[in-house]
Amino acid sequence: MRLTRFFLPTLKETPSEAQIVSHRLMLRAGMIRQASAGIYSWLPLGHRVLKKIEQIVREEQDRAGAVEMLMPTIQPADLWRESGRYDDYGKEMLRITDRHEREMLYGPTNEELITDIFRNAVRSYRDLPLNLYHIQWKFRDEVRPRFGIMRGREFFMKDAYSFALDYDGARHAYNQMFVAYLKTFKRLGLHAIPVRAETGPIGGDLSHEFIILAETGESAVYCDRQLLSFDIADHDIDYDGDLQPIVDHWTSLYAAADDMHDPAACPLSGDALVEARGIEVGHIFHFGTKYSKPMNAVVTTPDGTEAPVEMGSYGIGVSRLVGGIIEASHDDAGIVWPEPVAPFKIGLINIRAKDDGCRDASDGLYRKLLEAGVETLYDDTDESAGSKFAQMDLIGLPWQLVVGPRGVKAGTVELKNRKSGEREELSAESALNKLTG
Amino acid sequence: MRLTRFFLPTLKETPSEAQIVSHRLMLRAGMIRQASAGIYSWLPLGHRVLKKIEQIVREEQDRAGAVEMLMPTIQPADLWRESGRYDDYGKEMLRITDRHEREMLYGPTNEELITDIFRNAVRSYRDLPLNLYHIQWKFRDEVRPRFGIMRGREFFMKDAYSFALDYDGARHAYNQMFVAYLKTFKRLGLHAIPVRAETGPIGGDLSHEFIILAETGESAVYCDRQLLSFDIADHDIDYDGDLQPIVDHWTSLYAAADDMHDPAACPLSGDALVEARGIEVGHIFHFGTKYSKPMNAVVTTPDGTEAPVEMGSYGIGVSRLVGGIIEASHDDAGIVWPEPVAPFKIGLINIRAKDDGCRDASDGLYRKLLEAGVETLYDDTDESAGSKFAQMDLIGLPWQLVVGPRGVKAGTVELKNRKSGEREELSAESALNKLTG
Repeated sequence: MRLTRFFLPTLKETPSEAQIVSHRLMLRAGMIRQASAGIYSWLPLGHRVLKKIEQIVREEQDRAGAVEMLMPTIQPADLWRESGRYDDYGKEMLRITDRHEREMLYGPTNEELITDIFRNAVRSYRDLPLNLYHIQWKFRDEVRPRFGIMRGREFFMKDAYSFALDYDGARHAYNQMFVAYLKTFKRLGLHAIPVRAETGPIGGDLSHEFIILAETGESAVYCDRQLLSFDIADHDIDYDGDLQPIVDHWTSLYAAADDMHDPAACPLSGDALVEARGIEVGHIFHFGTKYSKPMNAVVTTPDGTEAPVEMGSYGIGVSRLVGGIIEASHDDAGIVWPEPVAPFKIGLINIRAKDDGCRDASDGLYRKLLEAGVETLYDDTDESAGSKFAQMDLIGLPWQLVVGPRGVKAGTVELKNRKSGEREELSAESALNKLTG
Repeated sequence: MRLTRFFLPTLKETPSEAQIVSHRLMLRAGMIRQASAGIYSWLPLGHRVLKKIEQIVREEQDRAGAVEMLMPTIQPADLWRESGRYDDYGKEMLRITDRHEREMLYGPTNEELITDIFRNAVRSYRDLPLNLYHIQWKFRDEVRPRFGIMRGREFFMKDAYSFALDYDGARHAYNQMFVAYLKTFKRLGLHAIPVRAETGPIGGDLSHEFIILAETGESAVYCDRQLLSFDIADHDIDYDGDLQPIVDHWTSLYAAADDMHDPAACPLSGDALVEARGIEVGHIFHFGTKYSKPMNAVVTTPDGTEAPVEMGSYGIGVSRLVGGIIEASHDDAGIVWPEPVAPFKIGLINIRAKDDGCRDASDGLYRKLLEAGVETLYDDTDESAGSKFAQMDLIGLPWQLVVGPRGVKAGTVELKNRKSGEREELSAESALNKLTG
């Protein structure tokens, strides 16, 4: 993408309304603009990151056997009366009355709607297990939206819903999502720690939050230091196999969020206990028949009787992850994107756009990068070199490829790694081999 | 995808509430379920088609130089007061009051919001031209939602917004979208006819609707018969070049929708005039300074003065296209998907799932199709052969690959083309070569 054809309204000043670094950097890097309190437009650079994260989340859900669909944003109030949550939910639910005075709401989550779809379509245990997910905008009318898209009102979320005949089946679905989440966050360049969690308004008896550590996190986390070096295998997981050993491994050590941490009961002390700040990026729940019973979502069992289906739900905050990744990966100059979610892999900078030699060399590199399918943002503007470098650091693309008049004469370009700051001068050909290889 | 792991709740009965064929078939084929009047959940099969169409629309927008972003669904009322449309829009606008009694709305379109983003970011003619688009859910509170997703309330739309310094620039942007739309609809397997249109609530002085012909279409179309055989070139278009000749060619012959057709002024008669029913699938507008003037979206001009920017907007009904394609492509047995938007390319049918030989042969074919990256729905259930064939015809995948006990003995499979109905018996290897080649 040529910068002259892109829309990248970066800011030199730090916006005063932004309290945390991800919010400041997203505004400064031209990723988002506020439409109203807690509601944001995703400008092209931010949108590209959002889509990258969405796609990684999707691929890992698919691998784990979940099936994608899409539920609408607007739901009828009546369904929520069946579960009893219409009154429980309070003011965080955005309630809407349509032109025919019907009560509707902007979905904050989808347990009721998916249970309704299930009960109208599935009759027999032979159609189980089933795990349906969607990636859709949701709304939570926060009393004080803050931290940009980290605690916004309109947010983008992946939510999956599993259906099983019995507890064992439900537990296997839970384990599938537990493992898929570890894989997902790893691919996003994050280290997430699963902690036992309160089930809150979703309900149920088993629940884990996935928390990434960041100084600016809104929740406190207490965990065994060894958890910081746990890693999930890179190889393919057999999601039909027994996943309990993996889950047991990750839950064998102490880890708790604020609301579940009991200093008196904590077995750790001193250096073994990490007390840190974290950001919740995923939350999984087993809640059994909490919705299937009142909503009468039953299946026939192998012995011919009927039983309410065993359910769980599994959320990942896709838009929130954009902020979470920035909180975990930035420096004084700006964002440092992990390559899998970077909006472009390479920033190609022509530092003298009016010079014929520089332009020809840059155009040639750009064409070759495009042909190789490498996502490149090509700064072909006639801004000053200094402002180009600062802007490229700010938006945080993993590699900067710099073309200048001295290099053009010598037949070289400069390649800078955004994360390490390392620069090397090399031939254009070597740079291309390195970046496309 | 194995059917035993998919969620495909097809219906044997024709739902009585559905008046048109696309609505009937989408319900029967397990593509959608109604959540409430005019609001639908997209089940996995429907969701796959929606995503295919979305991606083709996206690629053609990108090719034409438009830049993708994403605006939120909920907008502040105040912006619509600036343009004067808050009161004009009437009851089709879903109005919402949040917990702080702020007036909001679920966006039916985005001229105001994009103009706001533009005026806060762009100051100079040197940053023009610009064309920003998004693909987002919208809401229109129809008094009588009907025809399934064809005239629903929550709908998925691509809308682009162009900004130019002057009329010539705006006209070029208009032409870019005009041509991109012809290319888009062709890739979707549709023949769309551009007709001059009223500008309606969007405003402006130049507007075309893109209409596909279908007996069940809600609008009448009157056009020169020759237009039915017009075709847009397959080769790449130079969107920076002069597109006026292409637009002139397509607008050289008489074509009008109901509201613009004047029998007295129509130059055609007899067989030269086609009177048909059609479905509007796209609509483009040039409206100049209708929004930029009241909202003060100005840029500095080359001579140092300020001028309101010239704008246009360009919509494609992505969810509506799913229905439109079915209206244009179905038979008595069900849907007949054009290959580019088919939810899967191949339906692999094992007609005797309990037979070891059939299962081994089917599993082997499935594995090879997956390895070749061919999207395959594998009916591995133990339903009867007849019900499998009927279901596969209903959901309309382009190819059916049938494995049965006789063929397994003879080393053959049967390949059926859904559209032509042609069947051939051939070796498994030949079938694979044909389908993956």
